[in-house]
Amino acid sequence: MTPGESLAGRHALVTGASGFVGANLVRGLAARGCRVTALLRPSSNPWRLAGAGGAVEVAHAGVDDEASLAGLPDEALGDIVIHAAAAGVRPGEAEAAVMRANVRGTVNLLERIAAAGTAPRFVFFSSCSVYGDRAHAAEDAPLEGRGAYAASKVAGEALCRAYAEAGVVRPVILRLYTPYGPWEAEYRFVAGTLLRAMAGQELPVTPGEQTRDLIHVDDVVRATAAALAVDGVEGETINVCTGVATTIRDAVAGIVEAAGTGAVPRFGALPYRAAEIWKMSGDPSKMRRLLGVDATVPLAEGLARTRRWLEENAGVYRPALSR
Amino acid sequence: MTPGESLAGRHALVTGASGFVGANLVRGLAARGCRVTALLRPSSNPWRLAGAGGAVEVAHAGVDDEASLAGLPDEALGDIVIHAAAAGVRPGEAEAAVMRANVRGTVNLLERIAAAGTAPRFVFFSSCSVYGDRAHAAEDAPLEGRGAYAASKVAGEALCRAYAEAGVVRPVILRLYTPYGPWEAEYRFVAGTLLRAMAGQELPVTPGEQTRDLIHVDDVVRATAAALAVDGVEGETINVCTGVATTIRDAVAGIVEAAGTGAVPRFGALPYRAAEIWKMSGDPSKMRRLLGVDATVPLAEGLARTRRWLEENAGVYRPALSR
Repeated sequence: MTPGESLAGRHALVTGASGFVGANLVRGLAARGCRVTALLRPSSNPWRLAGAGGAVEVAHAGVDDEASLAGLPDEALGDIVIHAAAAGVRPGEAEAAVMRANVRGTVNLLERIAAAGTAPRFVFFSSCSVYGDRAHAAEDAPLEGRGAYAASKVAGEALCRAYAEAGVVRPVILRLYTPYGPWEAEYRFVAGTLLRAMAGQELPVTPGEQTRDLIHVDDVVRATAAALAVDGVEGETINVCTGVATTIRDAVAGIVEAAGTGAVPRFGALPYRAAEIWKMSGDPSKMRRLLGVDATVPLAEGLARTRRWLEENAGVYRPALSR
Repeated sequence: MTPGESLAGRHALVTGASGFVGANLVRGLAARGCRVTALLRPSSNPWRLAGAGGAVEVAHAGVDDEASLAGLPDEALGDIVIHAAAAGVRPGEAEAAVMRANVRGTVNLLERIAAAGTAPRFVFFSSCSVYGDRAHAAEDAPLEGRGAYAASKVAGEALCRAYAEAGVVRPVILRLYTPYGPWEAEYRFVAGTLLRAMAGQELPVTPGEQTRDLIHVDDVVRATAAALAVDGVEGETINVCTGVATTIRDAVAGIVEAAGTGAVPRFGALPYRAAEIWKMSGDPSKMRRLLGVDATVPLAEGLARTRRWLEENAGVYRPALSR
């Protein structure tokens, strides 16, 4: 049985559906035969869901707004809920807003599900940031992440486990590493650098010795689909990563290669961040063992595919970014 | 400097002030010169606060009721907040109610403090239940507690740490072992057994081989006062325990001795609980090192004092229980 087969005919509600990962999940689950309710805040720009197809229904509610959640029908929470809504990914967001969205919002959603009494399979997107500075982190590594975002994700995980103990949800917690691919926001590293390289613009970069575990968003969707379809993973916490630690220097070289414009990176033109994280890569053993999947897209191929996607979708992508 | 000196003139808001630990904290802080706001739900019976004195002001709000929290003046959250409100201690409480009070309630309180912007010293009462079945647990032991109550406390701790990272509170997390003493509910082990023994009633008990770390509530108040007064403990998680593992068999023998009525325990007359916890005692080293306090009340003395207190306060204690 492949995960794709068993998801056909299921229903999934996806929070954060207007975001980079959320929109890819909406499309990926619909492609696997799910009926999908894409949950957007009324204020969110739905550009990433354009043309997502008839299996996708958009519902307007925000996890940070209890009244709007109360307006959802219980059936929308009856089968699969994927909680991908989060704040704090975008630089400069206020810490209070991060708490409100990631912690408060998660509680609101879990309480709404408790009221519905539907006990759905529940995927919570946590983050590699919970580990802090660590190479090849396994899931039982100490949680030494610093800052409000990491702490909000640690709290979100604990919330899922608590409500699971009370029978409210059947959770799988996915600790996501650094995704890239279609619909990535232009302020993020891969998309931003690739767009600048494609445009032949200057590429000022830090010295680039820090490492990241860059995973193509299609692999994130594949792992999530498996987490929904595979038995015996409820209550588990699983890294979603490639296991490959890539230096920013090598990633930029790969991006320049994929762009093919001869752009020249200027390593060291930017300073490191004050709280730079030097090593952030995961151990994918548990993902492989429990979910039966592996990241299948090598970085060079993923970057080439992303470059092609950016060219083919310039009409929907770049205008949306400049709004 | 003793903690008592430095708390004089401070203000403390105590949630769960109508409960066993909460009411002892209210009285203990008032005795140390604090002005105290005792937070009670409008539906709570305030019997444990009778005669608590002029330094104690009662305010009606529930952490599970955001609107009521909104009605608190910001000043009430401006100095010290002690979050002792919790559900799940009383047997048979619904898991959903435990989540709502312990998780949702903690978020509500932290968000209310965020709105006030007061960044108070914040004591969160966690529980030895987070460790699960473990003797002499130190604070870095794995959190293997099972069930909704333990999970709700793990989540509560994570919430405090998250909001601390966002600058909302300056927390100290106290993992409380098994408190006993004045105002303990009659359905709890020590008070219940002592009252029956004092009345010369039958004492059916389990075989009693399980161990607990029984701490007199005055020592809990002493540790809490230190956690408020001592510098350098913000963000710390600290056991509040004696370090002494007492079997239930020995505890019952001590209770019978304290009662002095010649009551005879019937060990084995009750079965163990299905999910019995066999070992639950803590390592007090960190409490000693960081807070500079130790549990000072030996069990035999604590039981004798509790027995005297029960006799002297029969007028306020037993009538309240039968209500």
